[in-house]
Amino acid sequence: MDHRSPCPISSFLDLWGDKWSLIVIRDLMVGKTRYKDLADGPETVPDSILANRLKKLAEWGVVDKVRYHDRPPRYAYVLTEKGESLRPVLLAMSDWSQTNLPSRWSTPDWFKEARPAPRFAPEEE
Amino acid sequence: MDHRSPCPISSFLDLWGDKWSLIVIRDLMVGKTRYKDLADGPETVPDSILANRLKKLAEWGVVDKVRYHDRPPRYAYVLTEKGESLRPVLLAMSDWSQTNLPSRWSTPDWFKEARPAPRFAPEEE
Repeated sequence: MDHRSPCPISSFLDLWGDKWSLIVIRDLMVGKTRYKDLADGPETVPDSILANRLKKLAEWGVVDKVRYHDRPPRYAYVLTEKGESLRPVLLAMSDWSQTNLPSRWSTPDWFKEARPAPRFAPEEE
Repeated sequence: MDHRSPCPISSFLDLWGDKWSLIVIRDLMVGKTRYKDLADGPETVPDSILANRLKKLAEWGVVDKVRYHDRPPRYAYVLTEKGESLRPVLLAMSDWSQTNLPSRWSTPDWFKEARPAPRFAPEEE
């Protein structure tokens, strides 16, 4: 990927400066792993954008695409460490919105503590 | 401004999810106050984008446009407290890029400590 400059802020924006990519990251942090769950967020990401973003995220090493069923083929999407390391950026964005925009959701503790949402948490053995 | 959802992360991206707005904020944090200095960054923001962004930033209460000379009229652009409170987001972005992208600039102490760059710092009395 070519960057506009060596500035780490503008380089971040070269990758993440759009309205959808970090929403997909948020939903993966929420614990969603399946395409249909990722497509079904409160902002309803357009299908063409979601497919395109997931492809880019895998290319960048931010998401692993794992085949968990063979016939028919089914895939799960899981954040890598590089993807998980975006959490401080998302938490800083949340803080700014909660301070500066009216009536935003507050950030749940499980999100701050890097646990999935209860409804998407892996089942106990 | 209409938001796609009450999520504070997606609401942040409703405002800031593009490749240029936070670069203008970075340059104001660097201490640039004049249009020509803002236009002259390492990424050379296109003129039409810069004028449009500065107008939006003033509407959002993130930037004050101050007339400092009457004939001819000259304006300075200064971050408000709401704008300054974006710094933790920019620092988190920098950290991510320095960890995950090769050969990015390191963040100068004056930027972390919310001081302007030496060349843009106000002169001593």
